[in-house]
Amino acid sequence: MSESPVAHDPPIYRRIADGLRARILSGELRDGDRLPGENTLMADHAIARATARQALAVLINEGLAVPKRGSGVYVRLFKPIRRHGSRRLSREQWGGGRAIWDADARGRPFTVDEVEVVREEASEEIAGLLATEEAWVRRRRYSVDDRPVQLATSYFPAPLVDGTPITLPDTGPGGVYARLRDLGLSPAHFTEEVRARMPAPRETRLLGLPGGTPVIVISRTAYTEEGRPVEHNEMVLDSAAYVLQYDFDA
Amino acid sequence: MSESPVAHDPPIYRRIADGLRARILSGELRDGDRLPGENTLMADHAIARATARQALAVLINEGLAVPKRGSGVYVRLFKPIRRHGSRRLSREQWGGGRAIWDADARGRPFTVDEVEVVREEASEEIAGLLATEEAWVRRRRYSVDDRPVQLATSYFPAPLVDGTPITLPDTGPGGVYARLRDLGLSPAHFTEEVRARMPAPRETRLLGLPGGTPVIVISRTAYTEEGRPVEHNEMVLDSAAYVLQYDFDA
Repeated sequence: MSESPVAHDPPIYRRIADGLRARILSGELRDGDRLPGENTLMADHAIARATARQALAVLINEGLAVPKRGSGVYVRLFKPIRRHGSRRLSREQWGGGRAIWDADARGRPFTVDEVEVVREEASEEIAGLLATEEAWVRRRRYSVDDRPVQLATSYFPAPLVDGTPITLPDTGPGGVYARLRDLGLSPAHFTEEVRARMPAPRETRLLGLPGGTPVIVISRTAYTEEGRPVEHNEMVLDSAAYVLQYDFDA
Repeated sequence: MSESPVAHDPPIYRRIADGLRARILSGELRDGDRLPGENTLMADHAIARATARQALAVLINEGLAVPKRGSGVYVRLFKPIRRHGSRRLSREQWGGGRAIWDADARGRPFTVDEVEVVREEASEEIAGLLATEEAWVRRRRYSVDDRPVQLATSYFPAPLVDGTPITLPDTGPGGVYARLRDLGLSPAHFTEEVRARMPAPRETRLLGLPGGTPVIVISRTAYTEEGRPVEHNEMVLDSAAYVLQYDFDA
């Protein structure tokens, strides 16, 4: 190991970023305010343009600021969505007629701005996960505070859900899990896989991601008590908008 | 919404990447093999250099290939580590004298290539999380198959662990959780927070990350049965090396 994992003094661009972040988090700089530009940072700290740019890039990557072409970098305050892995999928949530994503929002309205529902031939992966050749596929985008934060694509074994509200844009109170329950196929166990990667261009467009923002990809399969897979959901999250929380016991 | 969330035909660079990925996953291209270069891809597919570069960048970002300066892009096969959020932290694991990270490895040797243990003044964040002014801090790097995959920094309330093996590089069978148990402070509940972001330069160096690879950041706090916080661990993972798995019930 050529370098010790010990913490060193942070480099200058990071100390500048730390200072700007403190001014944002203290409320001195507010949502929509323009941050000091590259020229100002260069003069104030006697640094090169590349260093000033790096300092601003830190805040952009953290989702605290957003560049506007030709005009500078602006504070973008967005309280991260705290997505609680297990609580949100409890029977109390969907059994009580509430939408799953309402558990994440804590009073901030989640909106689904488009829903597409189609019956498709299952890909090899989906066929393997759901033991089906044909799938009903629900694609949608979620926004919070007018900001797109998540793309989600759910797959259901077609023979199980043909002719049910799961094939309609509006699935009714409690959503698809409550409808699976109506069919005697209540989800009982969930497996979530979490990965991170850079977004595909289509994801960058649909989520309005600034450069250098990774996405979190969550692949979840829902199983009945008997172990029958009833849904697979692929979610792509703006990493700057989310904190995922998982609680468990030793 | 200006664009439907419907799947479209993938762009050419992505189809080329799909083809190369299939050849890697089928075993036709093997670990260490050189991928077709930009010039070859340009000639074979009648595309611009930027498009060829994009195709190769997809595989690099996915961790399936690695660029070598001035020599091309090579297959780098590395089966992702499946990190099981809850099973690995079960009492059976550390209570039985096994290392936590052995649960992830499934027969592949995890190595800790450097451990630093120091007593430090707690940062404001750590002081708040652990209710302590001074902390013992354990910093280490983990590698699998000679590849660095994770940096981890654990914090303990200093008055609780002063003079115990937790302050030594080698903490003995079962590691720090077994030692906390010896002190009557068995971890009973865990909260993990998962984020993704681009790496800091130091993280890029220590993890040997190729350009465009995000990191997954896991912040975990361990609590005793009585709710007393006994450890906080900040982990920085190479996102191309990990899949996080969480299982839970409805």
